[in-house]
Amino acid sequence: MTKSIDLNCDMGESFGRYKLGLDEEVIKVITSANVACGWHAGDPLVMEQTVLMAREHMVGIGAHPGFPDLLGFGRRNLDCSLEEVKNYVIYQIGALQAFCQAHNTRLQHVKPHGSLYLSMLEDEDLARTVAEAVAALDPSLICLTLAGAKNRNMTRACREFGLKVAYEAFPDRAYTKDGTLVSRRNPGSVIQDPDQAAERALSMARDNQVLAEDGSKIPLEVHTLCVHGDTPTALELVKRIRGELQGAGLKVSPLREFL
Amino acid sequence: MTKSIDLNCDMGESFGRYKLGLDEEVIKVITSANVACGWHAGDPLVMEQTVLMAREHMVGIGAHPGFPDLLGFGRRNLDCSLEEVKNYVIYQIGALQAFCQAHNTRLQHVKPHGSLYLSMLEDEDLARTVAEAVAALDPSLICLTLAGAKNRNMTRACREFGLKVAYEAFPDRAYTKDGTLVSRRNPGSVIQDPDQAAERALSMARDNQVLAEDGSKIPLEVHTLCVHGDTPTALELVKRIRGELQGAGLKVSPLREFL
Amino acid sequence: MTKSIDLNCDMGESFGRYKLGLDEEVIKVITSANVACGWHAGDPLVMEQTVLMAREHMVGIGAHPGFPDLLGFGRRNLDCSLEEVKNYVIYQIGALQAFCQAHNTRLQHVKPHGSLYLSMLEDEDLARTVAEAVAALDPSLICLTLAGAKNRNMTRACREFGLKVAYEAFPDRAYTKDGTLVSRRNPGSVIQDPDQAAERALSMARDNQVLAEDGSKIPLEVHTLCVHGDTPTALELVKRIRGELQGAGLKVSPLREFL
Amino acid sequence: MTKSIDLNCDMGESFGRYKLGLDEEVIKVITSANVACGWHAGDPLVMEQTVLMAREHMVGIGAHPGFPDLLGFGRRNLDCSLEEVKNYVIYQIGALQAFCQAHNTRLQHVKPHGSLYLSMLEDEDLARTVAEAVAALDPSLICLTLAGAKNRNMTRACREFGLKVAYEAFPDRAYTKDGTLVSRRNPGSVIQDPDQAAERALSMARDNQVLAEDGSKIPLEVHTLCVHGDTPTALELVKRIRGELQGAGLKVSPLREFL
Repeated sequence: MTKSIDLNCDMGESFGRYKLGLDEEVIKVITSANVACGWHAGDPLVMEQTVLMAREHMVGIGAHPGFPDLLGFGRRNLDCSLEEVKNYVIYQIGALQAFCQAHNTRLQHVKPHGSLYLSMLEDEDLARTVAEAVAALDPSLICLTLAGAKNRNMTRACREFGLKVAYEAFPDRAYTKDGTLVSRRNPGSVIQDPDQAAERALSMARDNQVLAEDGSKIPLEVHTLCVHGDTPTALELVKRIRGELQGAGLKVSPLREFL
Repeated sequence: MTKSIDLNCDMGESFGRYKLGLDEEVIKVITSANVACGWHAGDPLVMEQTVLMAREHMVGIGAHPGFPDLLGFGRRNLDCSLEEVKNYVIYQIGALQAFCQAHNTRLQHVKPHGSLYLSMLEDEDLARTVAEAVAALDPSLICLTLAGAKNRNMTRACREFGLKVAYEAFPDRAYTKDGTLVSRRNPGSVIQDPDQAAERALSMARDNQVLAEDGSKIPLEVHTLCVHGDTPTALELVKRIRGELQGAGLKVSPLREFL
Repeated sequence: MTKSIDLNCDMGESFGRYKLGLDEEVIKVITSANVACGWHAGDPLVMEQTVLMAREHMVGIGAHPGFPDLLGFGRRNLDCSLEEVKNYVIYQIGALQAFCQAHNTRLQHVKPHGSLYLSMLEDEDLARTVAEAVAALDPSLICLTLAGAKNRNMTRACREFGLKVAYEAFPDRAYTKDGTLVSRRNPGSVIQDPDQAAERALSMARDNQVLAEDGSKIPLEVHTLCVHGDTPTALELVKRIRGELQGAGLKVSPLREFL
Repeated sequence: MTKSIDLNCDMGESFGRYKLGLDEEVIKVITSANVACGWHAGDPLVMEQTVLMAREHMVGIGAHPGFPDLLGFGRRNLDCSLEEVKNYVIYQIGALQAFCQAHNTRLQHVKPHGSLYLSMLEDEDLARTVAEAVAALDPSLICLTLAGAKNRNMTRACREFGLKVAYEAFPDRAYTKDGTLVSRRNPGSVIQDPDQAAERALSMARDNQVLAEDGSKIPLEVHTLCVHGDTPTALELVKRIRGELQGAGLKVSPLREFL
């Protein structure tokens, strides 16, 4: 059987006059788009445009909810209560659902953004809170989280509320022997070489494994690869990765088609 | 046949630590709530609480979208394009729909807020734009607009996109002989006397007419009366009006039950 | 020599249509006002009004900068960099200085708000960053911080940058034997009885000591007492405290007059 | 005597992760920077960076206050009261003054942004309100407004409150025979050809006249030319214009040096 893999990318991060990302190009190469919902990035016009582009290119649409912090792009931790996060997530997903509804398409997945995404890996109650909110809105939504050792909270939470979970890996990031990401602060944490990144993408997607920084091969269950489209170089890398995967006989398609 | 009348009130206008309105009390007396969606007022926690209260008291839930102007409470005109308004409205209605969905209830109506509401009376293109957006989200939603001579744009727009329209009148406001509201700047524009306001409410609801400032009786098709709940006095007036209507044999019930 | 004591209160926390606090009454009883600068609370109109009221009643004006989190009222920790906090503080103090300038008065002090205030007690680098920013704007500004064991970072930082520091105590809060505040989550952490609070205020102001929850008397260097004005009851307590202090012969006056 | 001319450009419009403009390059070529103050664009970190860059290159620093509308970049009219505009302007100028103060430099001018700038040309009360606010903060500040027939309100208002006024012209925009700008909606309203734009700049700066679209030469009192730096092409044009002016023997220098 042909193995399938999804390529996901953060999109719709422009805001008013501020443009971010090469969305019009990236959309042609990826299979799932994580769409900002206006709190850490994005605005209603951008959301509509992104939904229309995704629909046209048959890309799976995901909500990408974040903290209410446009100034910090949702990357700074904000010490919210569970009650707050629950309702912030419902609000943002609902807003994006409306654009899908208005344009005759529907949401495929939810991937929390930035600091919220990271906090959910560490905080079991937060993971349960978000999973419960997602399930209350639409139990067919797929939750996207980190592949590897750190996804236990999310996996358990999604199972509890009957949600499918998809694991994502990062072809351009170094991994520790424990299967977690090497901190961006460390030298060598980001893989610059396109050949190497493409090779790692293939290893992740086809073999469910990644070469750790200590040289060991570690297993990693992967359904989707997270790629970037904020620079021409990043875009080239996505194309390169997609070519590598397809050249090896993998099917590059949205999560909803194989999960 | 018993005549029905709806009582609508703006609700869910609190924001973070800022409290506005006596929502917990008002909700028991009205039949339809216009819920702020976080742009000119309201926040996700308040939206959830308001939806839960409305559900408990079987009050019809309406989206109350406004301009992105928390500082001005949505009352200042903002010169937006049609494209902008369309997507702002979709975003806000969608966010509120999500709270309804998460709590197993659904939206009944849409009533634009403040300056947006007023602009739609004057601007036919704007009225069409909003009606089209509402219909794209849920064609069973009722659009709430002003009773009287000024609702032609809204009536036509709703008809074009297959939406039901509900006309609202203001028992505590003076009317010109043309059936429009006397400007708040004019003396006597707000009816202070509870007896008089209750009497006018009954005349509007039962007889579909209102006494204009020049003493003439003018016809006014009315489905819902707009009331206020931001002060103890305002709350008392709503109770008084409800008593008057029920005492005269009218059925006070949400729009969805009779429109 | 007559001992002096200042009474400080957070003010100017209203925003747009949202009203908070009984500022018009409180201003007559206190001697220093901590004025919100539009980020966690307050807006330009409220800032102007508050400056005018403070000037009229010869109340010392202080900037009350907070995190950019109106939704959370600046009470949620936001994980900002030192660079960010430095510039956020400069921005907010500058905005308030302009209202002082426009109305021929000047700033007396700076008291960071909420979560920023608390973080500065724990984080030496943060304390230094804020002190340096304040000194760069106006080295005659007084920095307001917590009386007791926890003010070491702030004291050192103010000394380093040549700023005067004022210590504040809370007459309506219980203290541990270490001279720190009992957490609000603990029973008995807030003193409800006006007599007791007034007595504690006097003990703090005149004797520089406070009765800890274990019954021991602990020394506490105090220049100003923090009081509240958000409810009629709170306002009564301030009046009661002021009466108690003056009855005992203390001079209740702004920090600038005795520090 | 050598004639002087200033080149002004909007700067500091980036916000958080959103980058706008080639500020690091433009700053080397212009003589006055209009710095966004965080309401329609800009943030405290960007403001500090811009002030530091301007100081380093001896560029005059101007406050560029706008409506509270980041989403619309301050380009949409917001129907504010005079009281609101007055305080919004004081707030924003004050915030920027603080960065100047913290870095041992000072403001040179004020140029309102976008829709506020345009409204002040039409509305005499608004012009007076802003001029009064500026004068209350610092009567040595220069007010920047449009050269030509439309500046009467601003000129009168500045005179009334003792402020210097500087007139700006647009080398890359077509002018009507009445000396006003041809609307951007009209074909030919923007001069694309660099040669032509540079030539017009020289005519404006040296001869105080401009060639109108009907071929007539109209007089135009000009102290500063407004240029753009948001694209590499725009930046090239600024360099070209500066070269043309200097080649003709004009002195390109900040307003404060010759006004």
